Amino acid sequence: MEQRVRVCIWNEFVDERVNDVVRAVYPDGIHAAIARGLAAYPGLEVSVATLDEPEQGLSEERLAATDVLVWWGHRAHDAVSDETVARVQRQVWSGMGFIGLHSTHYAKVFRALMGTSCTLSWRVDGGCERVWVVAPSHPIAAGLGDGFVIPHEEMYGEAFDVPEPDELVFISWFPGGEVFRSGCCWQRGNGRVFYFRPGHETFPTYHQPEVIRVIANAAHWAAPGATRTVPGNRHRPAAG
Amino acid sequence: MEQRVRVCIWNEFVDERVNDVVRAVYPDGIHAAIARGLAAYPGLEVSVATLDEPEQGLSEERLAATDVLVWWGHRAHDAVSDETVARVQRQVWSGMGFIGLHSTHYAKVFRALMGTSCTLSWRVDGGCERVWVVAPSHPIAAGLGDGFVIPHEEMYGEAFDVPEPDELVFISWFPGGEVFRSGCCWQRGNGRVFYFRPGHETFPTYHQPEVIRVIANAAHWAAPGATRTVPGNRHRPAAG
Amino acid sequence: MEQRVRVCIWNEFVDERVNDVVRAVYPDGIHAAIARGLAAYPGLEVSVATLDEPEQGLSEERLAATDVLVWWGHRAHDAVSDETVARVQRQVWSGMGFIGLHSTHYAKVFRALMGTSCTLSWRVDGGCERVWVVAPSHPIAAGLGDGFVIPHEEMYGEAFDVPEPDELVFISWFPGGEVFRSGCCWQRGNGRVFYFRPGHETFPTYHQPEVIRVIANAAHWAAPGATRTVPGNRHRPAAG
Amino acid sequence: MEQRVRVCIWNEFVDERVNDVVRAVYPDGIHAAIARGLAAYPGLEVSVATLDEPEQGLSEERLAATDVLVWWGHRAHDAVSDETVARVQRQVWSGMGFIGLHSTHYAKVFRALMGTSCTLSWRVDGGCERVWVVAPSHPIAAGLGDGFVIPHEEMYGEAFDVPEPDELVFISWFPGGEVFRSGCCWQRGNGRVFYFRPGHETFPTYHQPEVIRVIANAAHWAAPGATRTVPGNRHRPAAG
Repeated sequence: MEQRVRVCIWNEFVDERVNDVVRAVYPDGIHAAIARGLAAYPGLEVSVATLDEPEQGLSEERLAATDVLVWWGHRAHDAVSDETVARVQRQVWSGMGFIGLHSTHYAKVFRALMGTSCTLSWRVDGGCERVWVVAPSHPIAAGLGDGFVIPHEEMYGEAFDVPEPDELVFISWFPGGEVFRSGCCWQRGNGRVFYFRPGHETFPTYHQPEVIRVIANAAHWAAPGATRTVPGNRHRPAAG
Repeated sequence: MEQRVRVCIWNEFVDERVNDVVRAVYPDGIHAAIARGLAAYPGLEVSVATLDEPEQGLSEERLAATDVLVWWGHRAHDAVSDETVARVQRQVWSGMGFIGLHSTHYAKVFRALMGTSCTLSWRVDGGCERVWVVAPSHPIAAGLGDGFVIPHEEMYGEAFDVPEPDELVFISWFPGGEVFRSGCCWQRGNGRVFYFRPGHETFPTYHQPEVIRVIANAAHWAAPGATRTVPGNRHRPAAG
Repeated sequence: MEQRVRVCIWNEFVDERVNDVVRAVYPDGIHAAIARGLAAYPGLEVSVATLDEPEQGLSEERLAATDVLVWWGHRAHDAVSDETVARVQRQVWSGMGFIGLHSTHYAKVFRALMGTSCTLSWRVDGGCERVWVVAPSHPIAAGLGDGFVIPHEEMYGEAFDVPEPDELVFISWFPGGEVFRSGCCWQRGNGRVFYFRPGHETFPTYHQPEVIRVIANAAHWAAPGATRTVPGNRHRPAAG
Repeated sequence: MEQRVRVCIWNEFVDERVNDVVRAVYPDGIHAAIARGLAAYPGLEVSVATLDEPEQGLSEERLAATDVLVWWGHRAHDAVSDETVARVQRQVWSGMGFIGLHSTHYAKVFRALMGTSCTLSWRVDGGCERVWVVAPSHPIAAGLGDGFVIPHEEMYGEAFDVPEPDELVFISWFPGGEVFRSGCCWQRGNGRVFYFRPGHETFPTYHQPEVIRVIANAAHWAAPGATRTVPGNRHRPAAG
């Protein structure tokens, strides 16, 4: 496929600066690790943005030049302004894809797109995560066979309070006894939204090829079509 | 069915006070007309609330005592505070049903529940609206046969920018050539949401028995189950 | 709820007759065990039927007097005639509920209702099954909290080749590392279909109260509304 | 997009031979008209097949070399053998796309894929059909704006007894007062299914560029991914 997708990886970039364990795993930030991974995929044109940049890294210009926004947030959800949330949501409505990773389940922008609480249960225990493919022909599952194993991860458990996904791609198994819908697709306006569970900051999840492959697949899946239009109320004159 | 459902009809109650045409149709308010209609349904316990009451008519106590909230808003969408929106949304997540009528498509609380722009096309022309049943066995369509005709209505046309409904119950036909998904169901958290298109303030739509029947059916459908719990993030200890 | 639901439990009733292990667990058949369990639920009127009866236990009269058909099949799928399948499918289209249990995933009638292969992966290992609730407010999950554990079961693993469920109620976890969408809802015509995974014939699954509760909840959920009509093509004259 | 899709247009090819009116509109068959239209789309490699060919035009070899099967059937539904239906369905499960046109709603293979009766209401009156886009960013709606008008068509009306579409792309309006879900998407196994309503044999619908464009768009949308595998039950050994 010759389609070229402009991916912007946004990271709040806080844990990596305040927590030695996280910095050891992602010395230049989670966004940089994902960007390096995606560089192997020729159809993607990758850039990065962080919370500490002007306009929180997400100006109108920046967003307009982005086909798919990848988001990683955790402890700084509240620092993201309502204006930033509104700008991002509006771009999704106009067709920009949005990929929310891991603790982004509780980011303002993801919750605004879902309309639900997006809550779940969790436990940091460092056991493995088995990611099972439940939709084998879905483009996001391409090349992943039955699924893959992440050696060490935080546990997320059901019930995950999101709208029933339009398409469920992955379900995760955890050794402590829990399950989680870990790859979920929704349409919002003209834009496509994908949530992908793995990626706790203290584990090298984003150094794992299968995880990067999922993000690359999702970027192609979420890329907008030819037009990029914000829906609006419009008066429709009589046919006359 | 013996289930008893506490329905609260909320109306911004502005058009009826400032517009003579509307007052002529609904002299004591749209909410009062709907309440009168629903009084014929013994399983429903009906109350009303309006924007000008304390806490905009929607205090925590009020909402906690409501099984299903019916909402009519139009020109005062912006007057509804973010706090009110948050209170209502949280109650929906906990299990309260929500029925949005007509121009409520653009109410803050409905848009917050959907996550999309909720925009559409429209024309006030007073032609008829034919409401077709597309899900004959759905409880909201009970007793309505193939559908019914509203003699005079405002036109709403596609594309209606909402998430794909979990269940589509009605599609409307307009003589000017338009169609509209006029009865749509979604789950949000533990609560059920129904959008029903008819009800322009200058037409006697809410005096029509079939329209009231839809609202009564929807109230039973949207009523919460036994528990009423707000979902929350929760730490899950190891099985031990 | 005062609604009274006529439930017919159909069982091929073969394993219990040819296999000593199965007979030890279900001496008078799986259908009898389920019927005994459901007897504790006053809203249900329970009967049983088996493959060796005239018309395979499923005559037109029998089906017309059934609100919800529960089905357990395994080694005799091929013995069910195409006529029987057609009769049952037609009744589902007219509004009869259908609950498919365990190996019924591969029954002719279930596959005819789904339109897919309904294949999966499996292993008889007798480990536990943890059944997680992923839709806490769904009526089929009522009274089950976060879920429950079945001490010994056969494993079923993804990918389960069914259409994306309209509502996903349960996901199961197995100690060998697998997950499975174990409680799935679909609408087919005027009828509701529920698939529930547990119930291998060599384990006492249908003696467990939580399992029976799921079936009882599902029977109420799947019960038809007021009308029972087979959809048909119909010429529609001009309004004239 | 460089993807090259092998499209096979299957037509029962009966009306054109027995009915002068139809022959006048489609002298060499509906399949030939569609094939001519699709020839303008460079990404598609188009062939045709008809009921009177060996193995009803749909041998295993033929199907294995087909990415997307377009189907037009009407009066000869019963002439299609169960073996042919099973071959086609199995290929859909393995990933082949299927596009059902117009009266194909009642073809055996379409009904087998849906699991419902697929019935509807109808009237041949030759009025116009307005096809509205309700999912503007869906790839099948690309290039069609708000929709388009077909000058003369047969009317199909709701209720259309199909499973709730995974994605609803078009709704049609008819001057006699009816509406119809005229563009519907479903996933079945690894294959994608699209139903498109227009195309009565006595009207020149398949000579209209917008109609051909929908079929071309749908062919790209329904094309399978890299693998083409029939799902099967499989024993899964313990991890060991």
